[in-house]
Amino acid sequence: MATGKYLPKARNIFARNLRKFREAANLSQEDLAEHAGLHRTYVGSVERGERNISIDNMERLANALSVRIIDLLQK
Amino acid sequence: MATGKYLPKARNIFARNLRKFREAANLSQEDLAEHAGLHRTYVGSVERGERNISIDNMERLANALSVRIIDLLQK
Repeated sequence: MATGKYLPKARNIFARNLRKFREAANLSQEDLAEHAGLHRTYVGSVERGERNISIDNMERLANALSVRIIDLLQK
Repeated sequence: MATGKYLPKARNIFARNLRKFREAANLSQEDLAEHAGLHRTYVGSVERGERNISIDNMERLANALSVRIIDLLQK
């Protein structure tokens, strides 16, 4: 992901890692959304870095992927 | 912090660590709020685990304390 002259923001790091772990788990956005109790379009927008996701939803997604939130925030 | 039969939620871990790092930096809630561009009462409610804080505000607080978000999420 090109970041130009700016450092990546946390939400972009989260977005990239969410997609990486979701794909590694062989889950569609819809599968992940269902496991996490969230909406498919919401998961898509989080993966595009469009959402200022809350800590509770970060936890829901991490739990649904059986990873830790900090795994989703590693650069 | 007593958690009863429930595992600590991420927002409670964040709350506890935020207070710990703020106090270690010898900053008041008001000081931290000012550095982070947030309101003092908001910082207080985050430290009490009352707020479902967003990733952008987690990043603001981490930057204001010169730590990483993942430092604020360590159990």
